[in-house]
Amino acid sequence: MTDLVDGRAIAAALTEQTAAAVAGLRAQGGRPALAVLVATPDAGAAWYLRAIERTAARAGIDAQAHRLPGVPGAADISSRLAALSADPAVHGIVCQTPLPPGASLATVGPAIAPGKDVDGANPASLGAVATGLPGAFPPATAAAVLHILRRSDVPLRGQRAVVVGRSTVVGKPVALLLLAADATVTICHSRTPDLAAVCREADVLVVAAGRAGLIGAGHVRPGAVVIDVGTNPSAAGGLTGDVDAAAVTGIAALLSPVPGGVGPVTTAMLMSHTADAAARAVPAV
Amino acid sequence: MTDLVDGRAIAAALTEQTAAAVAGLRAQGGRPALAVLVATPDAGAAWYLRAIERTAARAGIDAQAHRLPGVPGAADISSRLAALSADPAVHGIVCQTPLPPGASLATVGPAIAPGKDVDGANPASLGAVATGLPGAFPPATAAAVLHILRRSDVPLRGQRAVVVGRSTVVGKPVALLLLAADATVTICHSRTPDLAAVCREADVLVVAAGRAGLIGAGHVRPGAVVIDVGTNPSAAGGLTGDVDAAAVTGIAALLSPVPGGVGPVTTAMLMSHTADAAARAVPAV
Repeated sequence: MTDLVDGRAIAAALTEQTAAAVAGLRAQGGRPALAVLVATPDAGAAWYLRAIERTAARAGIDAQAHRLPGVPGAADISSRLAALSADPAVHGIVCQTPLPPGASLATVGPAIAPGKDVDGANPASLGAVATGLPGAFPPATAAAVLHILRRSDVPLRGQRAVVVGRSTVVGKPVALLLLAADATVTICHSRTPDLAAVCREADVLVVAAGRAGLIGAGHVRPGAVVIDVGTNPSAAGGLTGDVDAAAVTGIAALLSPVPGGVGPVTTAMLMSHTADAAARAVPAV
Repeated sequence: MTDLVDGRAIAAALTEQTAAAVAGLRAQGGRPALAVLVATPDAGAAWYLRAIERTAARAGIDAQAHRLPGVPGAADISSRLAALSADPAVHGIVCQTPLPPGASLATVGPAIAPGKDVDGANPASLGAVATGLPGAFPPATAAAVLHILRRSDVPLRGQRAVVVGRSTVVGKPVALLLLAADATVTICHSRTPDLAAVCREADVLVVAAGRAGLIGAGHVRPGAVVIDVGTNPSAAGGLTGDVDAAAVTGIAALLSPVPGGVGPVTTAMLMSHTADAAARAVPAV
């Protein structure tokens, strides 16, 4: 029997909490605002922007899309991010990916002020998360994975966690957050020879490899918790994860599916981070 | 048969390389300088300062000890680190630990300019290392572990590496560097229930737990490479590592012992980082 994580329900509950916090800030005269820099005509990014706008509306946060025309270079993107960082009316900043050729999140991320870096794009934010400094925001996706595990009462302390994927946006920050939660953490990737054997060591398996169907029945220890962070285009024009859900059903105790798992919680987490950033910026009455 | 890493020989070779690079910088009018902030009367720190001064002399680097009198607070330490960061005659900065009560490397580290942060004390440096950005310095100890593995021709790609300890200064940065070298990396710590079993998964075992004799025969797979990063006071008044060297001899293929392993290479690595930092600062002729 495999339970499914209801990411939409977890997201709705988180957004409700955020809305209450934002209402409090608004009562003090605050006007929490999230700026989304759009430097790409990518269809997935446009879809994600609409999801951000919908969730922001529910949370009472002003979401502002800032579109850069044409094919902006890294310098154009950095300079717009720096301007948003300096704008006291902006509390959170997200830079959408993929970026145009020549620009990368690692190189433009440092232009986002750490206090507004609600999607953890500045390497300094990752360093602060790694160091355990308070107030730093991990990438929203990584925070969403941990939020799902906590809301699902999954024990982490002393458990074996395996993360598949070592990206700066998901794999590494998820590993650092699991480590801070006292799990014993293993990070696998494309150079791991016997991926299935390593994955079977996991009490908690987090998959963020970006390869549809990578994880099958042979990768999951009976009773393990599996969090799928993959977002691959499906043949039907939708999204499909890195986990073969049908194959692991009956083996995993709990599965966070794609779609409907980490995705909605990520968007809700962005709003939660933005409310936190605004709370620090709004002077107490 | 267990081979021993000769850390002093590896350090001497690295310092020789650094001295050649420094001679080139001096020929261009550069004068590479390392500032060491001493905010602690700790005996170990005083010993380490003398080791730094000796190795700096061999490398042709000016090592300057900056002593803060009395019991300086975090603000005093940060402000001195900021002044050194702004001083164009200083190329590398080390802040010695342990710091006085109320100050920690995580909170004063941000005052060290990333370009001069030759011991990776600024969380932004760790974030840049995690992100894979060029030019960031990991902590010298972590870099020394990787240098020893490379100089000893230990394969890392696709190998299982296990790191015991999750400190910001050693465990986490070593894990990130092993990951960048394409190892499959597991991080263990005091909350790992069956430490011996996890350690036996390792082709390469790096131990930085700070507990003398923690690692014995039952923790080492026959033929594994064991790097001891522990520095515990021994009963005889010297240093002893986290690995029971006698117990693992005959099981490990290669052991980096304490003393004489990672320690001297760490000091040599600090000089190598300082020469790199100075090379970026010295304008080309």
